[in-house]
Amino acid sequence: MEKTICNSSHSKEEIQPLRYLSRAEALAIDKELLEEFRFGHQQLIEIWGHACAMAVTKVFPRRSLQRKQPTLLVVCGCEQNGAVGLACARHLRVFEYEPTIFYPKRSSNPLFRDFTTQCEKMDIPFLSYLPAETQLISDAYNLVIDALLGVEATPGELLEPFSTILATLKQIRIPLVSLDVPSGWDVETGTSDGISPDVLVSLAAPKQCATRFVGKHHLVAGRFLPYDVQKKFELNFPEYPGTDDVVSL
Amino acid sequence: MEKTICNSSHSKEEIQPLRYLSRAEALAIDKELLEEFRFGHQQLIEIWGHACAMAVTKVFPRRSLQRKQPTLLVVCGCEQNGAVGLACARHLRVFEYEPTIFYPKRSSNPLFRDFTTQCEKMDIPFLSYLPAETQLISDAYNLVIDALLGVEATPGELLEPFSTILATLKQIRIPLVSLDVPSGWDVETGTSDGISPDVLVSLAAPKQCATRFVGKHHLVAGRFLPYDVQKKFELNFPEYPGTDDVVSL
Repeated sequence: MEKTICNSSHSKEEIQPLRYLSRAEALAIDKELLEEFRFGHQQLIEIWGHACAMAVTKVFPRRSLQRKQPTLLVVCGCEQNGAVGLACARHLRVFEYEPTIFYPKRSSNPLFRDFTTQCEKMDIPFLSYLPAETQLISDAYNLVIDALLGVEATPGELLEPFSTILATLKQIRIPLVSLDVPSGWDVETGTSDGISPDVLVSLAAPKQCATRFVGKHHLVAGRFLPYDVQKKFELNFPEYPGTDDVVSL
Repeated sequence: MEKTICNSSHSKEEIQPLRYLSRAEALAIDKELLEEFRFGHQQLIEIWGHACAMAVTKVFPRRSLQRKQPTLLVVCGCEQNGAVGLACARHLRVFEYEPTIFYPKRSSNPLFRDFTTQCEKMDIPFLSYLPAETQLISDAYNLVIDALLGVEATPGELLEPFSTILATLKQIRIPLVSLDVPSGWDVETGTSDGISPDVLVSLAAPKQCATRFVGKHHLVAGRFLPYDVQKKFELNFPEYPGTDDVVSL
C-alpha cells in the first residue's frame, strides 16, 4: 500500500481500501486472538455464530421468505466452520426461523460436540442424508447455509462425503449463504468451478477469495476484533451500524 | 400459579406473569444449561456480557450522556458476575464507549483471567483503587456498572474490600447499573439498606429480589435460553424486539 505523505492534518481521515487476507494472514489473526488476546475457541465460535445469524436476518427477514414456514438448511463440516454453522443455526432458531442441520461427519472435538448437543437439545432436526435430487431441497427450504469447509480446507484433496455434497450444493437453485470461504474454493485464489453463493459472511475479515465473489451481499463479522488487530492487519472496516455485529460491504 | 380451565381454544394465548426465581431455581437453570444443554461457562459469560453492553447502549445512548467523553466505570467482583462485567466492558469499548474497570480481587480461575487479559490487551484502563470521595467518581464518569456480587454472594458475610466498595457505591449520585443482583442484596429477599440501582439487567431471568427494584429500567438477558427451559421454569418472557438479546420489562 502507498504511504501517504502527511502534508495535511486531515490526511489520516482518508478512506483506505478494505483488506483481503491471505491464508497466512488469516491464521496469524486467529493466532493473535487466541494466544495474545486470550480469546477462547468457544467464545469466537459463539460470536461468529451469532453474527452469521444476524446476517441472515438482515438479508432474509422472515417476512420476505418465499415459503410460509421460515425453513432453512444448515450444512456443517467437521472443522471450525461447521461449529460456527451449528451456533448460527441455534441463534436462527432463537430468532424464530426453522433451521434443519445436515452434519454428515461429526467432529470428536468436545467443544464442537457441545455446540451439537445444544442444537439437538433445542429440538433442531438433523438430516441423516442430503437428498441428491436438489428439487427436494428447493421444495423444503427457503435457503441453504454453507458451513461445510473453511480456511483449513484444501480443495484439491476433497474426500467423501464432501465432494458429493459440494456437487449437490452446486446445483441448488435457492439462495445459498456461505460462511467465510465458499466451500470448495481456495481461500486465496477462489475458483471458477465451485459453488456460487448469493451471500458471503466473512468471519473476522474477508479472505482473498472474496474478491471473486459475485453474489449480492457480502457481510463481515469482525466488529469484536480489538482495535490493535484491525490496525496491525490494516483491515479498514467500514463503520458498523448501531450495535450490529455484522456490516454490509 | 392458578391453573386455567381450557374452555376456549384461545386460552393458551393468555399472558402469564413474568417469573421471579428463587436462588435454588436460578442455580437449577444454570445446572440445566451447563449439564443438560452443554453450554460452556465461557459461552454464557460472552452472551451475557454482550447483552449487558446492549442494555447500556439502549438506556444510555452515547449522545444522551452528560459528559463529553462517553466514560463509564465497571466494578467487577471475583465470581461469575465480575467476569460478565469484564465481557460487558469489552463490548462497550467496541461500541465506542470509554470503560474503565475496577477489579480489586482478581480470580485465579483461568477462564476469568482470559476475560481480564482481553480487556487489558484492548487498553481498557484498570483502576488500582476506588476513590472514597464519590465526587471524584461523579466527575470522571457518566455511570457506574455494578458487577461486584451476584447470585453466589451471601450479604451477611461480606468481607473486605467488598464492604468498603459497597459503602462507596451507596453514595454514588450518577446512574448505577446492576448486573443480575444488585450488590449487597439478598438474591431472594432483596434489601432495604443496600445500593439503589437505576437500571437492573437480569441474567437468564429475574431473581426474586428484582420485585423490590424501584429503578427506572429493568431488562432481561434471557433470549438465548432454550424454549424448553423457558417453559419448564415458566419464565414467560415478553417478546424480544428484532434481534436484540435484551428486552425491557
